[in-house]
Amino acid sequence: MKKQVLLVLTDMWADWEAAYTLHGINMLDDYEVKTVAADGVPKTSMGGLRVEIDCTIESYTDFSNTVMVILPGGMNWKESRHDEIADFVKKAISHNIPIAAICGATMFLGKHGFLDNVKHTGDDLEFFTKEEGYNGQNNYIAAQIVSDGGFITANETAALEFAKDIWNTLKIYKEEEVDAWYTSFKNGMVQ
Amino acid sequence: MKKQVLLVLTDMWADWEAAYTLHGINMLDDYEVKTVAADGVPKTSMGGLRVEIDCTIESYTDFSNTVMVILPGGMNWKESRHDEIADFVKKAISHNIPIAAICGATMFLGKHGFLDNVKHTGDDLEFFTKEEGYNGQNNYIAAQIVSDGGFITANETAALEFAKDIWNTLKIYKEEEVDAWYTSFKNGMVQ
Repeated sequence: MKKQVLLVLTDMWADWEAAYTLHGINMLDDYEVKTVAADGVPKTSMGGLRVEIDCTIESYTDFSNTVMVILPGGMNWKESRHDEIADFVKKAISHNIPIAAICGATMFLGKHGFLDNVKHTGDDLEFFTKEEGYNGQNNYIAAQIVSDGGFITANETAALEFAKDIWNTLKIYKEEEVDAWYTSFKNGMVQ
Repeated sequence: MKKQVLLVLTDMWADWEAAYTLHGINMLDDYEVKTVAADGVPKTSMGGLRVEIDCTIESYTDFSNTVMVILPGGMNWKESRHDEIADFVKKAISHNIPIAAICGATMFLGKHGFLDNVKHTGDDLEFFTKEEGYNGQNNYIAAQIVSDGGFITANETAALEFAKDIWNTLKIYKEEEVDAWYTSFKNGMVQ
């Protein structure tokens, strides 16, 4: 059975944030990306793409082949608390599965206390510190990406760094291959 | 009625290549992104996302609100000639609609002769010149992106430049806003 990386989708998810990351995982023979969501209704991206859901978070209970949970940002993380997704993240953590979040999804993790004891980054320190119930702001670091204590967090401009850190965490490529890919995509093929 | 930007999907389309582009269009009140394909079956990205198709290319006949056709790259452009998509591109061109292609989709355009008389770029000059029936290699320019004669072409590392050129062609933002966005996403929020 393939190792599974879960992509948690909410409506108005940000198209670009996990886009590089996903192809580098799903193209491998022994890995697959599965979309999960609070319900089975397709989730529409900010760019207008309706993506089908492989599995509801309620019915996803076997974590034996799960190697990562990825939460892309989007316009919907501020709108609601998404308690059911927080419960799912808690369950994944109890199975020692690393969590990767970018942009709005880092705010979601912060709001639910997941980042209280780890160093992290995200989109907007202002927003973080204003957010009711969030008390991990002392661990906030202004950076493109931070990996600490099983969490990978990135800001919205760090889609390439997000891919790089996730691939290195999963150890699916040699680090020098990942570095070469990153350099090419960061600087462009023609400079 | 909203102005429509069409995203032509084939199986194994590249998640990241039009991702930035699309959100900047679809988030506007008077624009919408519509997915079109040779048939109505959801098209799966390299990253494993099954995206629903809004309209088959056969049934899309009213181009009065169509302002751009975007062809993302992917693993499937080399596999087949996609003659039906070439016919669709021809139809769009006859309505003076600009065509934007990236990565493998530039090879598709080259193969069908669309790039014979325009300057263009793409992923791989080697591939271009080897490709049977392609005779526009003299117009090939080694660049991240080229706009000429109603065509925007880009290589696979140029997702940001692709967004920038498409938004500027559509004139949906002030050029200085686009420049600021590009600078932030190219260099990162935290340098």
